Amino acid sequence: MVALTRHHIRSLVLKLRALSLACHGLQSKEVRFGTKSAGQHSETLWPDYKKLCHRACKKGYSLLASGATALETVTDVTALLENSPLTNAGYGSNLTWDGHVECDASVMDGSTLHFGAVGAVPGVKNPVKLAQHICKKQRCNALALGRIPPCLLVGNGAHQWAEQAQLATVHSKSLISDKALKLYRHYKKKVERYELRIDKILTPLDTIGAVCVDACGNLAAACSSGGVALKHPGRVGQAATYGCGCWAANATFHVPAAIATCTSGCGEHLVRTMLAREAALEVQRSSCTVTGLHHAMKTKFLESPFLSGVEERLGGLILLKCIPSDGTGEFLWTHSSKTMCISYMSDAERRPRTRLSELPNGAVPGSTLVVEGATFKLNPLVERAEIGIYS
Amino acid sequence: MVALTRHHIRSLVLKLRALSLACHGLQSKEVRFGTKSAGQHSETLWPDYKKLCHRACKKGYSLLASGATALETVTDVTALLENSPLTNAGYGSNLTWDGHVECDASVMDGSTLHFGAVGAVPGVKNPVKLAQHICKKQRCNALALGRIPPCLLVGNGAHQWAEQAQLATVHSKSLISDKALKLYRHYKKKVERYELRIDKILTPLDTIGAVCVDACGNLAAACSSGGVALKHPGRVGQAATYGCGCWAANATFHVPAAIATCTSGCGEHLVRTMLAREAALEVQRSSCTVTGLHHAMKTKFLESPFLSGVEERLGGLILLKCIPSDGTGEFLWTHSSKTMCISYMSDAERRPRTRLSELPNGAVPGSTLVVEGATFKLNPLVERAEIGIYS
Repeated sequence: MVALTRHHIRSLVLKLRALSLACHGLQSKEVRFGTKSAGQHSETLWPDYKKLCHRACKKGYSLLASGATALETVTDVTALLENSPLTNAGYGSNLTWDGHVECDASVMDGSTLHFGAVGAVPGVKNPVKLAQHICKKQRCNALALGRIPPCLLVGNGAHQWAEQAQLATVHSKSLISDKALKLYRHYKKKVERYELRIDKILTPLDTIGAVCVDACGNLAAACSSGGVALKHPGRVGQAATYGCGCWAANATFHVPAAIATCTSGCGEHLVRTMLAREAALEVQRSSCTVTGLHHAMKTKFLESPFLSGVEERLGGLILLKCIPSDGTGEFLWTHSSKTMCISYMSDAERRPRTRLSELPNGAVPGSTLVVEGATFKLNPLVERAEIGIYS
Repeated sequence: MVALTRHHIRSLVLKLRALSLACHGLQSKEVRFGTKSAGQHSETLWPDYKKLCHRACKKGYSLLASGATALETVTDVTALLENSPLTNAGYGSNLTWDGHVECDASVMDGSTLHFGAVGAVPGVKNPVKLAQHICKKQRCNALALGRIPPCLLVGNGAHQWAEQAQLATVHSKSLISDKALKLYRHYKKKVERYELRIDKILTPLDTIGAVCVDACGNLAAACSSGGVALKHPGRVGQAATYGCGCWAANATFHVPAAIATCTSGCGEHLVRTMLAREAALEVQRSSCTVTGLHHAMKTKFLESPFLSGVEERLGGLILLKCIPSDGTGEFLWTHSSKTMCISYMSDAERRPRTRLSELPNGAVPGSTLVVEGATFKLNPLVERAEIGIYS
């Protein structure tokens, strides 16, 4: 029999099982599908959205439990969401003005602070896997002749990198879902006929993403998006922009809290406000996570001087905060859009908790917001182990 | 005769002539051109670099004096620098691994806080003019059907936007200078022969850019880069990344100092440290501009946790700070690279001051830095006018 001190057990168990994961997706903006029935139609899809998020979260948790790193887990969870026709990412993405699929995705590794991203990339089955590959490549600080590995690759060059890395590339058309094509034709006609008439846009689905902490206490974040419907070819949004789509930074000697975030909403507004990074820094500075996140969303997004003149400020964010020194964790979500679908799970739960979070009745999307969340123990097994020893 | 109060005169004169401009470019990294003679060759080009910066600054000042806005001025100055074969931007850019020119550029308008950028764009004569066009388009907050104008366009989509906007597009090959082609062939051969041997890279020239304040007190910043030599196609660097290549924000009721910055150096390192924005914010917080900028370069770049594992941290930055309420202005430059060429001019001068700033003898590039600068009066004519009244 081996004698273990409390400290030994704590670190052992931490390494084995301390993990938590959350993913979000399918932020349903104030969808007006032309007709009211279409709006209702969107609501009929909610159960499917929830099921998908639930399944993704469950898969992610089992990956973590089997020893996957945080970066691998957020990537695989986001790839699963990309593969669903329900989401505006990977297969089923919104089409550009020219009728093609061009995807943005990025990942950030909290342990190395490396960031990998792809923008407006055509014909890659899982853009987030390409972003992960670019991120991992940065571990070697220099290529031959001292060249630095890239952070962001775009367009055909990004596609070429995917081929060289032997990631799944597909014919661009195979990423187009029937629904996306139908929407594209419907709305392109509308724009062409009434170019000058400002009406409401319809992006029924939005950026997807995931954040998690793995068994080693490392955090990671990933996001992916097909971009806005009828976007100009070559347009790159927040999902490929550093500090805007996702953020992850482990705890350090000077910074006791590890934080990972992932945003959703209008790409250009999330870029101009750098919401992923700003929210993480604001929560870092704040003694209360809920208050800090509320303050960040209010001052850095809803009231941001960078969005002067923008009437409707639609955004959403999931945030994971872990303090390794006291073993506590918090998962929060916030949005100013009408709804956001989220799913999360920690060691304490047997299955993911999945919710379609909504603004309160009567609240105006784009100018009010919700902040909600849950706390968890970073290493709940430790307590049980300790009880075992002392009982 | 019209009676003017002090306040009237102050604002009148401010509108007529308060302006200042600075541009930089041609940051010569620690150039090792394979042989020592080549290194010397690089030094023989210094007079040409200085002349070019001088000419660009002079042109910018005359534009401002004739009533051009800050945004127009930084764009035109940067375009002039792009057109020179001496700079790694526009014509004469470094070539990609595939032997093409792909350019990054961006502008930021301090009065609207709008940002426009292009990444890895082929066949556009002046990438910075395209970035300006994208920036200006954002003034209309929505296109038909509520679509949001883009911040960043990349690759062929960006080229297509240039054509639609009737900006000068050219055959991609016409942007290749003899010198860039020679360098490309020389170093590609070297990489192909010794792929695994880590040697020194040679980017003889780097990002160019400009910052200025116009007669209305508005600030703007612009930058442009052909990227690193032998870069992977589709690679996008700091010159197209929000908060990383340039930054500009006017003074507001809450923020008394207007600041514009523009960075140069290793693209990926400037992205990961968000140096343009971080330096602006640090100076904003600091009571002394020189100390603030030194602190920013030291803590946010040279000692940045985001560059963990990077041995040589090469970066440079120009910064313009104006406090409209007391009519003072400062122009500063800083770099950890061996040299940086800068040129600046304000109302008080008859011609630009142009310098090739160097690290002190014996200082190690990539780990030490210089901060220098000059102060100016934002509205020197006001004082003369006031003297006229009270004498």
